[in-house]
Amino acid sequence: MNLDHISIVLVGTTHGGNIGATARAMGNMGIDKLKLVTPHQFPGAEATARASGADWILDNAVIYHTLEAAVSDSVYVLGTTARRRDAAWQIFNPGTAVREIMRESDNGIRPVSIVFGRESSGLSNAELDCCDGLVSIPVSAKFSSLNLASAVMVVCYELRKQALRHADAEEISTPQRVDPLPTGQESRYFFEHLEQLLSDISFIKVPNPEKLMRKIRHLYVKAKPNSEELRILRGIMTAIQQNIGKSFNKTSNQLNINNK
Amino acid sequence: MNLDHISIVLVGTTHGGNIGATARAMGNMGIDKLKLVTPHQFPGAEATARASGADWILDNAVIYHTLEAAVSDSVYVLGTTARRRDAAWQIFNPGTAVREIMRESDNGIRPVSIVFGRESSGLSNAELDCCDGLVSIPVSAKFSSLNLASAVMVVCYELRKQALRHADAEEISTPQRVDPLPTGQESRYFFEHLEQLLSDISFIKVPNPEKLMRKIRHLYVKAKPNSEELRILRGIMTAIQQNIGKSFNKTSNQLNINNK
Repeated sequence: MNLDHISIVLVGTTHGGNIGATARAMGNMGIDKLKLVTPHQFPGAEATARASGADWILDNAVIYHTLEAAVSDSVYVLGTTARRRDAAWQIFNPGTAVREIMRESDNGIRPVSIVFGRESSGLSNAELDCCDGLVSIPVSAKFSSLNLASAVMVVCYELRKQALRHADAEEISTPQRVDPLPTGQESRYFFEHLEQLLSDISFIKVPNPEKLMRKIRHLYVKAKPNSEELRILRGIMTAIQQNIGKSFNKTSNQLNINNK
Repeated sequence: MNLDHISIVLVGTTHGGNIGATARAMGNMGIDKLKLVTPHQFPGAEATARASGADWILDNAVIYHTLEAAVSDSVYVLGTTARRRDAAWQIFNPGTAVREIMRESDNGIRPVSIVFGRESSGLSNAELDCCDGLVSIPVSAKFSSLNLASAVMVVCYELRKQALRHADAEEISTPQRVDPLPTGQESRYFFEHLEQLLSDISFIKVPNPEKLMRKIRHLYVKAKPNSEELRILRGIMTAIQQNIGKSFNKTSNQLNINNK
């Protein structure tokens, strides 16, 4: 999904700071187009300060006198509402709304507007009439007063997730394993060394040593140590043995641990 | 999933307003527990103003001197990072991180901390070492400067989505972890014990012991030892120390080992 044809529309915003914070959230999520319908304070120092560097979004913001004019290019207009209304509109959650946007815009190749109302009172019924669908953020019933930029962030975040899912999510990836994994032989030497150490310190005198060793092996499997980590562990074991006057003698490696 | 045992931890927050905005976002998403590590301005008028009525969260916020103390009750600590690191930590996206939290906390019945760093510089490496996993919000490479409360909002929104999903579909459950995970304090004792042992055997005389300890911590995080496994490891360490005439002198430390 392409985010280039998504516009965020703020209607009647009272505080310039909220416009700036909205621009910042949009910039974070890779959405650039901001439309302002009759903003009370814009441009201004507060907007610029709260944008924290998302200046290109403020600089390119377009101001409109009516919502109708602002959304006239769009094939799909999604309104945001805090309230559940008994109107004929379907109310989506943000994730579903994004799928609806994709569907209506041919995966983002046709223009879409997402409309956010006033800080105090949201969108009027006449403004909701300009919308093809509504989205509501699932806030706690106990405390539903959402900050404007936070609401924009949640919707833009869902849009970005969808876009990344489509782009095969190159952006977030699990770290590549740079260190080579130990060979089977290295792992085996590790366990031989460990068993000998545990015997040296008289730890393997318990009734059921196989059970203990199995638990340690399980921990080893979970940790998946790489070669460097294995070297560290073996270095520690060697240092311990030096302290107690023992050593790991690999050649005469018939460990007389009586568990097999 | 129950959100009652989730704590949001803010470390070294510079602006009181960001603490208030964080409380507001938390309240919207139904998460109440706020922990503050060495906040610069708190309590204060800015925090209260930006909380916009989420006063109960600010009133119940607990202040700590160290991150370690703040997360000591938690079975799982998730750190947030803006940067991609080459470390061994796995970096989750928010949705995956929430599933990991569910898994590690038995669907939210055991305490979890989610840690957010300073506005300017995030979390230090030492602070990241307190974390069991990392989450990164998939911001645009072009403009990655996230507002603190916006970052909190995205993570809390994913948590709430998961909680609502569970309320809708009780049938869906993640595999239960049978062995309890160690608490933060138990893990800390383990590392104190280990450091002392490595010092006893003169292994920590290398030029850069922090680097070594960090590697060992990464291995620990990968292994995710449960309480029983931790007892086995500590039993081994105690046996080693007995062999070299040393002991781990931590009074609060009940070592009832013997590998079972």
